[in-house]
Amino acid sequence: MKYVYLFGDGAADGTAKMKNTLGGKGANLAEMNHLGIPVPPGFTITTEVCSYYYDNDKTFPDVLDSQLRDALRDSERIMGSKFGDANDPLLVSIRSGARQSMPGMMETVLNVGLTSKTIPGLIKKTGNERFVYDAYRRLIMMYADVVMEKAAGVESDSGIGIRHRLESLIEKHKSDNQYVNDTDLSGQDWKLLSDKFKEEIKNTLKDDFPDDPMDQLWGAIMAVFQSWNGERAKNYRRIENIPGEWGTAVNVQSMVFGNMGENSATGVAFTRNPATGEDKFFGEWLVNAQGEDVVAGLRTPNPLNEETKTEGTKDLPSLESSMPEIYSDLKDIRGRLEKHYNDMQDIEFTIQQGKLWMLQTRVGKRNGSAAIKMAVDMKNEGMIDKKTAILRVKPEQLDELLHPMLDKESENSAPLLGKGLPAGPGGASGRAVFTADDAEQWNKKGEKVILIRDETSPEDVHGMHAAEAILTAKGGMTSHAALVARGWGKCCIVGCSDLQINVDKKEVVVGDTLISEGDWITMNGTEGRIYSGQVELIDADPDTHPEYKELMVWSDEIRKLKIRTNAESPDDAKQAIKFGAEGIGLCRTEHMFFDEERILAIRKMIFADNESDRRDAVMELLPYQKEDFMGTLKAMEGLPVTIRLLDPPLHEFMSLTDEQEKTLANNLNIDVGVVKNRISMLHELNPMLGHRGCRLGIAYPEITEMQARAILEASAELKKEGTSVFPEIMIPLVGSVTEYIDQEKIVRNVAREVNEKYNLELEFMVGTMIELPRACLTADEIAKHAEFFSFGTNDLTQTTFGFSRDDIGSFLPDYLERNILPEDPFQSLDVDGVGKLVSMAVKLGRDVNDKIKIGICGEHGGDPASIHFCKENGLDYVSCSPFRVPIARLSAAQAEL
Amino acid sequence: MKYVYLFGDGAADGTAKMKNTLGGKGANLAEMNHLGIPVPPGFTITTEVCSYYYDNDKTFPDVLDSQLRDALRDSERIMGSKFGDANDPLLVSIRSGARQSMPGMMETVLNVGLTSKTIPGLIKKTGNERFVYDAYRRLIMMYADVVMEKAAGVESDSGIGIRHRLESLIEKHKSDNQYVNDTDLSGQDWKLLSDKFKEEIKNTLKDDFPDDPMDQLWGAIMAVFQSWNGERAKNYRRIENIPGEWGTAVNVQSMVFGNMGENSATGVAFTRNPATGEDKFFGEWLVNAQGEDVVAGLRTPNPLNEETKTEGTKDLPSLESSMPEIYSDLKDIRGRLEKHYNDMQDIEFTIQQGKLWMLQTRVGKRNGSAAIKMAVDMKNEGMIDKKTAILRVKPEQLDELLHPMLDKESENSAPLLGKGLPAGPGGASGRAVFTADDAEQWNKKGEKVILIRDETSPEDVHGMHAAEAILTAKGGMTSHAALVARGWGKCCIVGCSDLQINVDKKEVVVGDTLISEGDWITMNGTEGRIYSGQVELIDADPDTHPEYKELMVWSDEIRKLKIRTNAESPDDAKQAIKFGAEGIGLCRTEHMFFDEERILAIRKMIFADNESDRRDAVMELLPYQKEDFMGTLKAMEGLPVTIRLLDPPLHEFMSLTDEQEKTLANNLNIDVGVVKNRISMLHELNPMLGHRGCRLGIAYPEITEMQARAILEASAELKKEGTSVFPEIMIPLVGSVTEYIDQEKIVRNVAREVNEKYNLELEFMVGTMIELPRACLTADEIAKHAEFFSFGTNDLTQTTFGFSRDDIGSFLPDYLERNILPEDPFQSLDVDGVGKLVSMAVKLGRDVNDKIKIGICGEHGGDPASIHFCKENGLDYVSCSPFRVPIARLSAAQAEL
Repeated sequence: MKYVYLFGDGAADGTAKMKNTLGGKGANLAEMNHLGIPVPPGFTITTEVCSYYYDNDKTFPDVLDSQLRDALRDSERIMGSKFGDANDPLLVSIRSGARQSMPGMMETVLNVGLTSKTIPGLIKKTGNERFVYDAYRRLIMMYADVVMEKAAGVESDSGIGIRHRLESLIEKHKSDNQYVNDTDLSGQDWKLLSDKFKEEIKNTLKDDFPDDPMDQLWGAIMAVFQSWNGERAKNYRRIENIPGEWGTAVNVQSMVFGNMGENSATGVAFTRNPATGEDKFFGEWLVNAQGEDVVAGLRTPNPLNEETKTEGTKDLPSLESSMPEIYSDLKDIRGRLEKHYNDMQDIEFTIQQGKLWMLQTRVGKRNGSAAIKMAVDMKNEGMIDKKTAILRVKPEQLDELLHPMLDKESENSAPLLGKGLPAGPGGASGRAVFTADDAEQWNKKGEKVILIRDETSPEDVHGMHAAEAILTAKGGMTSHAALVARGWGKCCIVGCSDLQINVDKKEVVVGDTLISEGDWITMNGTEGRIYSGQVELIDADPDTHPEYKELMVWSDEIRKLKIRTNAESPDDAKQAIKFGAEGIGLCRTEHMFFDEERILAIRKMIFADNESDRRDAVMELLPYQKEDFMGTLKAMEGLPVTIRLLDPPLHEFMSLTDEQEKTLANNLNIDVGVVKNRISMLHELNPMLGHRGCRLGIAYPEITEMQARAILEASAELKKEGTSVFPEIMIPLVGSVTEYIDQEKIVRNVAREVNEKYNLELEFMVGTMIELPRACLTADEIAKHAEFFSFGTNDLTQTTFGFSRDDIGSFLPDYLERNILPEDPFQSLDVDGVGKLVSMAVKLGRDVNDKIKIGICGEHGGDPASIHFCKENGLDYVSCSPFRVPIARLSAAQAEL
Repeated sequence: MKYVYLFGDGAADGTAKMKNTLGGKGANLAEMNHLGIPVPPGFTITTEVCSYYYDNDKTFPDVLDSQLRDALRDSERIMGSKFGDANDPLLVSIRSGARQSMPGMMETVLNVGLTSKTIPGLIKKTGNERFVYDAYRRLIMMYADVVMEKAAGVESDSGIGIRHRLESLIEKHKSDNQYVNDTDLSGQDWKLLSDKFKEEIKNTLKDDFPDDPMDQLWGAIMAVFQSWNGERAKNYRRIENIPGEWGTAVNVQSMVFGNMGENSATGVAFTRNPATGEDKFFGEWLVNAQGEDVVAGLRTPNPLNEETKTEGTKDLPSLESSMPEIYSDLKDIRGRLEKHYNDMQDIEFTIQQGKLWMLQTRVGKRNGSAAIKMAVDMKNEGMIDKKTAILRVKPEQLDELLHPMLDKESENSAPLLGKGLPAGPGGASGRAVFTADDAEQWNKKGEKVILIRDETSPEDVHGMHAAEAILTAKGGMTSHAALVARGWGKCCIVGCSDLQINVDKKEVVVGDTLISEGDWITMNGTEGRIYSGQVELIDADPDTHPEYKELMVWSDEIRKLKIRTNAESPDDAKQAIKFGAEGIGLCRTEHMFFDEERILAIRKMIFADNESDRRDAVMELLPYQKEDFMGTLKAMEGLPVTIRLLDPPLHEFMSLTDEQEKTLANNLNIDVGVVKNRISMLHELNPMLGHRGCRLGIAYPEITEMQARAILEASAELKKEGTSVFPEIMIPLVGSVTEYIDQEKIVRNVAREVNEKYNLELEFMVGTMIELPRACLTADEIAKHAEFFSFGTNDLTQTTFGFSRDDIGSFLPDYLERNILPEDPFQSLDVDGVGKLVSMAVKLGRDVNDKIKIGICGEHGGDPASIHFCKENGLDYVSCSPFRVPIARLSAAQAEL
């Protein structure tokens, strides 16, 4: 059994394809050797050893020791030095490397091989005592922390772990000697501290720091394997769904040092610019430094080359100018790596005394516009094919192009006020206001405002529209505020339970900060963070981004899932078409009722005490509704438009002040007591589960009739004009097929009358929103009658979990933080629960009606993972807010691949 | 093909077993002939003709005509008169008869065969012109309504149907002649009216009333078949699940008349007393009368025999004394029928000029105590076996024995105020009060009160306890009021949306009636009816009913399903044991927190701003809770007790008046503004879907810890005393297994500590309430950890349907009336939706954990149909309120059979 794979000097036992056995890091180190790239030699102990270790009571296979010694000899041959040798000692690093990257979750030990025997030889060889003792004390600190303390069973979360104790010794030494920086310490200082370290370890951990190089090596290897099952790693695996059986490999590699003088250096680089996607070699380096110095940010790193210098770095030395030959080698390597991997690489290198070594290559992270540009460029350069290009961009990365974003640097320095649920992406700054009316007034004065509310309701819509962004203390990802904001592509944070809002005083307390009306605040709606003050914004304009357009064209070629949008006005519809929508999947009709003239009719209806008066009141709305639908249907010419009949409980139309109650009583010529009484009768303890959806249309059939007539007459008039329209009338909140039958009958009767009146035959469908568990469970019955299903996964998630989207703010953040839920089920479809119901309903429905059209119009319609689910479950389309249409188009293409 | 089955003169083609072909009525008429009982001869046209009729474009098989003529000849032979004969005409009745009784849903035509040709002959034969013309005009009225108007396609719901027109002619004739009663009209009057009738028919229906007897006969037969698919019958079948394919038979039977003089009579009788179950022949009769006269109640009917005479009927003539020979024959028939059918029969008879004819026999309806007595008596008499006896009693009929009931007669004459949902069975009268405090105060003064509220909350519990009954304007069958009332066996009506309550004025308006505080009202909680004034009550005492006890013993022998109870105090527990409970399936813990001292601790907890203060506040409750559990566990010695951890949202503990807010602020030494603010933060839009159930225990683990400790320490102390206890700790509202794991860990840790502290090993279980769709969908995951499942079908019904039990009152009555829902899903488990989830969860759970104990603790646990479902789905037990335990015991036995 081969447990150890060698690499070095242009040869390697493994390849990039052997990630399962060698882990990602080990496989790439092997691959770089095959490419003739200089890599410090070493070897990889396979993941199988990890499995063996745990299956065999934490022991190793017998042959491992000899394989390891052989491998070590190979590295010694290449490096020309020997592990543990008194004159020319080889030092090695020990690093983990799992099949899938688990950054920071497992242990690393560097400088292994430094002992009382090898130190003098290394000092002699390097002529640098300080370098050697500094390396030694680093080894001791890491080893004590990673290997010895864990072995001693003392948990570091006691707060006074060994690392902390040793760091205190450094601090004490510095203050005793009035040193300010670590660089003030000499070789002798580090030597002295190394001795103190060993003493402290002996006292605390009751064990000696090992002075034998092989002991150090085995201890470090064991510590890496041990860390595979540490709490941190286990939690990470649970979240990322990485199986425990995979195990980690261990990479043992010869140490090279970038801190051995002015001809030494270290750096990190990206083969293309990760921020812009430009095809320019981009990176940072430091002379006479170690890798951690670049990362730590104590010294300002230098730019890699001349062409990527910026205003801020123009006076710093580039590697290109300082070490032109090495830069040329590195640039050559960059080319080879990118060509070989066909993707932008994130690389680490060290120059030890004039010799370039590559320590790592991996696929580089990149932001949204960069990802798009690289993918499209690489396809056009012939590096990758169209499918690969599509898969290279994470759909969420498109958000950057579609919404203004906070400037990262300004954001990092802004004072964080609090956190909430990221309900509407993008960034915004504005002055705090606390009522919808104030929002509108400040806005009219030309001020940018952010509307802060406990929660929003349909009456706040004008203020929400006037605001740059919306912030609420309550509610979840599909609360009213979230839905409305996303529909407009507006920045929004909800469920920020730290807000203590006092509307009367027009102020809010967040932690210790008081924000009064007019104070500036800033929101990052993509991450859910709130800052005080103003932060710089970066504008969004996808149309100026040619690669974005190209990527969208490719996506549309590939995807089969149709993408519709949720829109309720001609403007929304036009916006959505610009983003590529192929129809409206959900046109809500309730907001159309809030206009002053219209709401009076609704209220008249509510107060009618007989059917005839009620009918008269409802029919007053017909011309308005007809006009609404004319506009939207026309904007969507040639495309299907799903219109949902009235859904909210009637009390949403009846939240009145005392004054408004009086006016209404006058208008209706009734006693104000009657008004108050009726309002109190309408009050519901759980309106979400109350008298709404088709339950309204069943109690008040004239509402259904009026809406059906408005839709169908609008369609008929457009058809007469020659506009082709495809209305789909959707009956909401059906739980029993009998409800559907009751409402469908009304619609079909109206359709017959409209066809006769206009002397034509309208093309339209009647169907239902599937948004209750019972609708899913009895979908076969419903599908015998309905022509389409549209999954309303917001409400379905509410009822499946028993979560109110408006009240989830009080516990969801905690649930997510403690991993009781892996993610917000209102954001990404819960496959195990809600998804099971959706699959069941699709199967039951299609089994009895193979022509049924099935889509999804919940907020999940814009979530990439949920779109994959929809594709797998054979849905015909997804519908999402206009601003998520591009994301959905890309996701749908990816789901197809 | 035989389409016509003869019966008469002691012979018949059919038997009682041929209900499918002959319908219930026809089969029993045939059977009576086999028993040698005198039945007017006739024949039954089979249900197959009905199917043929609808399958063949409303035509009849060719052979039917000749079979019918042959059959008619047979009846003529027996009766010695001829259909259509001018001298001695035979008259016949045409009646429907389906496989299952559909009372009043189909048509009947009597006196067929009277024509201008046969009338003189019949007058001559009977010597009674008035009798003949009265019969004739009845034929015309029925025929015009049932046959002709339907055929003309004029729907009677126009409000001026032909029946109404003809009745107006009678009224006009009476007022023109200053007649008061129909009996004032002579033969000539009826003759005149018959002519006017025919004229009106001709004018309105544009057709002549047929003067040919065969035309009349075919018309009537066709009308009966036609009525099988009438709206009324179709609706009834849908409700009762009777397939349309069954069809109806048609019975054509020779007419006999009880109104042909003083030697004629008619009557109805029961073979045993249907009100008491006594083995006494019981019935009513009228001399010289027709069947409808007995039913119409215009004349007071006479008692059948001497032994069943009452105070009210002691001076009336019995059949026994008036016609002793005929009575003796009838009594003999009674014996034969009961012996033959082995059940109490409801019979109709007519005596025509001294000859007894039996017109019908069928199993008689009976009330609860009678059903029990008859079943047990008949078993003990050896007529039926034990299983049959158990199946003879409808479980709901036990209610009569368990709750006081309104006296039927007084109820019938009481003024009906309104209707609501029948949430707690039984009857009650009391004075109206409008607040819990008023209920308590009036009660202390010795007054019986009925508490009227919009809806109730835990704070009202003291007033609910003091009241005789509870009446609410809102809420459904599992609203707070309903649950609490049923737990106490208290009469309760909810969701009575006609109530317009004004708490300030202490009055309620129902329709046109104003009820003020102190006014008497009466409620029938079994039917959901509310009356003004006082109605006589009949007390309940099952212990005085030996047959009830015997039936329960038999049921317990047979059933396998265990019956537990929902109880939350030692008193409830004792009550339930008396009713036969075998454990507690649901002990809620929230009401235990409302005591004044305790609620302060809860409120302190709510206001704590750090974990340590919160923990201190919660732990103040430990001694109280421990005491609560000691009592209940002890009362249930040797039986399992499922205790649910705290479930309601915290704001239920925080509904305070301004004054109480101030007191609380003082108590907690904080600003009243802070109190108000915290309360407003706790407010939820949909508390049912909010921060409750295990979501509380996850946010505040110290609550779970305290409750687990109280339960387990109480158990440990009882065990030390030698009392055997089996607590089952139930974690509520789990939707994800991660929630369960989080909470279970706390309970297990406490258990370890308690075991150590008391140095023993407690027997206990940890499990969960399955009350969310998602719990059902992921029951396999949960069952890997939980030791028991208890289906909380109330909440499961809420979320599956998306119905709030508190708000359903606004539309459920309408849904039931319009048959959009077949029944209240909170009362009887919705098999198609909720039931599908339950089945799924049982299967998923048992597949991974075959030891898991599964029960149901929703209100459905006491519903017979739901108990059948639980049995079929392999549940181990059902749990219901104490007063439903006997019903559940009987239902469980029936489910087994």
